[in-house]
Amino acid sequence: MKTLKVGMLGCGNVGTQIARLLLANKADLASRSGAQLELVKVAVKDLKIKRDGVSNALLTDDAASIVNDPEIDLIIEVIGGISPAKELILTSFKNGKSVVTANKALLAQEGAALYQAASEANVDLYYEAAVAGAIPILRPLRESLVGDHVKRIMGIVNGTTNYILTKMDESGTAFEDALKQAQLLGFAEANPTADVEGIDASDKAAILASLAFHSRVTSKDVYREGITKITATDVKVAKAMDLVIKLLAITELTNSGEISVRVHPALISRTHPLASVRESYNAVFVEAESAGQMMFYGKGAGGEPTASAVLGDLVAIARHKVVGGIGPKESDYASLKIAPIGETKTRYLIRLNVADKPGVLESVAHVFATHSVSIQTVRQTGAGDRAELIIMTHTSNESALSATVKELGNLPVVTDVASVLRVEGAI
Amino acid sequence: MKTLKVGMLGCGNVGTQIARLLLANKADLASRSGAQLELVKVAVKDLKIKRDGVSNALLTDDAASIVNDPEIDLIIEVIGGISPAKELILTSFKNGKSVVTANKALLAQEGAALYQAASEANVDLYYEAAVAGAIPILRPLRESLVGDHVKRIMGIVNGTTNYILTKMDESGTAFEDALKQAQLLGFAEANPTADVEGIDASDKAAILASLAFHSRVTSKDVYREGITKITATDVKVAKAMDLVIKLLAITELTNSGEISVRVHPALISRTHPLASVRESYNAVFVEAESAGQMMFYGKGAGGEPTASAVLGDLVAIARHKVVGGIGPKESDYASLKIAPIGETKTRYLIRLNVADKPGVLESVAHVFATHSVSIQTVRQTGAGDRAELIIMTHTSNESALSATVKELGNLPVVTDVASVLRVEGAI
Repeated sequence: MKTLKVGMLGCGNVGTQIARLLLANKADLASRSGAQLELVKVAVKDLKIKRDGVSNALLTDDAASIVNDPEIDLIIEVIGGISPAKELILTSFKNGKSVVTANKALLAQEGAALYQAASEANVDLYYEAAVAGAIPILRPLRESLVGDHVKRIMGIVNGTTNYILTKMDESGTAFEDALKQAQLLGFAEANPTADVEGIDASDKAAILASLAFHSRVTSKDVYREGITKITATDVKVAKAMDLVIKLLAITELTNSGEISVRVHPALISRTHPLASVRESYNAVFVEAESAGQMMFYGKGAGGEPTASAVLGDLVAIARHKVVGGIGPKESDYASLKIAPIGETKTRYLIRLNVADKPGVLESVAHVFATHSVSIQTVRQTGAGDRAELIIMTHTSNESALSATVKELGNLPVVTDVASVLRVEGAI
Repeated sequence: MKTLKVGMLGCGNVGTQIARLLLANKADLASRSGAQLELVKVAVKDLKIKRDGVSNALLTDDAASIVNDPEIDLIIEVIGGISPAKELILTSFKNGKSVVTANKALLAQEGAALYQAASEANVDLYYEAAVAGAIPILRPLRESLVGDHVKRIMGIVNGTTNYILTKMDESGTAFEDALKQAQLLGFAEANPTADVEGIDASDKAAILASLAFHSRVTSKDVYREGITKITATDVKVAKAMDLVIKLLAITELTNSGEISVRVHPALISRTHPLASVRESYNAVFVEAESAGQMMFYGKGAGGEPTASAVLGDLVAIARHKVVGGIGPKESDYASLKIAPIGETKTRYLIRLNVADKPGVLESVAHVFATHSVSIQTVRQTGAGDRAELIIMTHTSNESALSATVKELGNLPVVTDVASVLRVEGAI
């Protein structure tokens, strides 16, 4: 049996698990790939840090020496970030080495350049671990659903924010307290910006949109709102209406055939399959023309789950070295445009604090009518001389809705617009 | 661009949709596979039946003429059943043609022979549509999770029985009434035996077990119980305990490293991801060593969803003709044994009608103790001189449990053993 030599760039939490599993599952991996997979070199920043189960003899602080080593057949990149990961991967391709990466930011920003270089070198680029960790979702999109047309994807692709929103929903906790709890338990980082502001989810949304619609979509194309403004009241109101708030990465085709791609908190029905995705779990809900509705659920992060996804890809690129063939290249033949966020069509739940006097609802309804935003339900609750209006719209244009909200804020009878939340999925 | 000629065996509900989608998605399929896919011949039993969207000129009643046609590159088999599907597929292989099939019964009974013939001919055998219709589950098992170890699979893989059990759960309907309703709506066939007795699910369980544990498992290896004995009372009692009854296809590794593979109704917690799988939807819940818990959810049957899965496979085998390579062969290197059902370890919920007099619980508890079956909870409800005991056991051996139940039935204080149901998953 042939031996394929593997070089790994980076050796943090995920890398350590990959190294461990490559040894622990050696015989299995060999019989599944058709080759002995041998980890021969690991690039790290600091040679002094002890890494469990990774022999010191494998370590080097010269990453270039790995991608330029003619003895090495396959590369695993788990450094993360743009540079030097990008340059190292491009050099790997130039040197004829296929690459597995878990680097969502790099793919979401520089996917086109990577794909092109891989294609020119006729080598593989695999990245299942980049979206939703261990959950096989990219392979189904790249391979299983290629005979179908994806219409829409809604994903819970960030475990930190889902953990926070789950706590807010189940214990009535405020955002700040839920975040602190998540940090204490290791579900959120000390600097939580990338998670709570939806940056991480946007990278994943871009990758999902590219694969779903066979077009180039980068993280810059993704409209983004985080969850920092979600209040305990928002959650409580949602609950009373049998809804739950989730941070969703959404991508869909608009009526004019453009790609809408966005990350924002959204209300969904408690009977929607995504509603029962709790804590740090991830799930991707896919709607395809022929296959209908599907959902892929599992662990979205963590060293071992991510390593599992990386090894699945490693076996794929190893098999290609052994039996020939090559994985899917970039599929961008559709070249669809990105729809501006203003053209997004969805429903909205709007909470207004208003004066409790006759004619308020009339003035409010007039503003909606002016902008052709149709109201589905209104609930009015009074308390003294103030009242709260909870308004659910029918499907409406985002720009019409924004104009409506702006004008509502200027109405004398409206004290303030307490919240505006999108409503997604069937209710 | 190369043209690959496709021959299709069978043209029922699924075949008609495949033919339609091959035309409707022609350009997409070409850019994804690298070849024009042209349906050139379709074998049917009765040439006189009109098939929507399938030109009469393509039809033949001589299936052998397709698999022996040197002009035809790829074969789709959607006849179903063992013969003549098996012979036609084997001839296709012998003639160097890769095959996509949706034939679960054939794979579950004759998978080894098919795999061997495909391997000898160095061609592909793909069958995503055979389990859980449109849901990509076999590709994830065959490819994405190859670097991991599956520990357990629990699947709702039969839409008819899930529809019936959903109705029983949601409306308190008796089995017979729910079945009639399912038949009226087209969710159950006039002769529902294959579905309600778990035969269809057993075929799928065998396929899932083979892929999960890299061993040959046939439908004969699967222990099977259907749902015909489930009563409205069983459902009601389950509901009161926050449990729900599902027909599950389960396969897992026993402590002694054997494969337990079985299809039977089981109680699961209402918070389990499988509990929210309603009506005719399917879902497969997978537990792997590194990836952890995953679930794959979607439509398990229907012409269009099944056609979507077949086309995904067709693109895969077409790509191999264009760029080289070949799909995974049979992975049976582990050669694990099948555990007898008596060695299954699970929990049980037992309902006993007993005389309501002092000492009854003592006698009943004594029988459990004799067989080393440990009781977790007992609930006793009295009505006149009779009472009902609802007993949940800790994890126990199936043979010990059977012996316990047998002895309970012979106890003078026990009027009858009203039901014995397995309890699966964390509660």
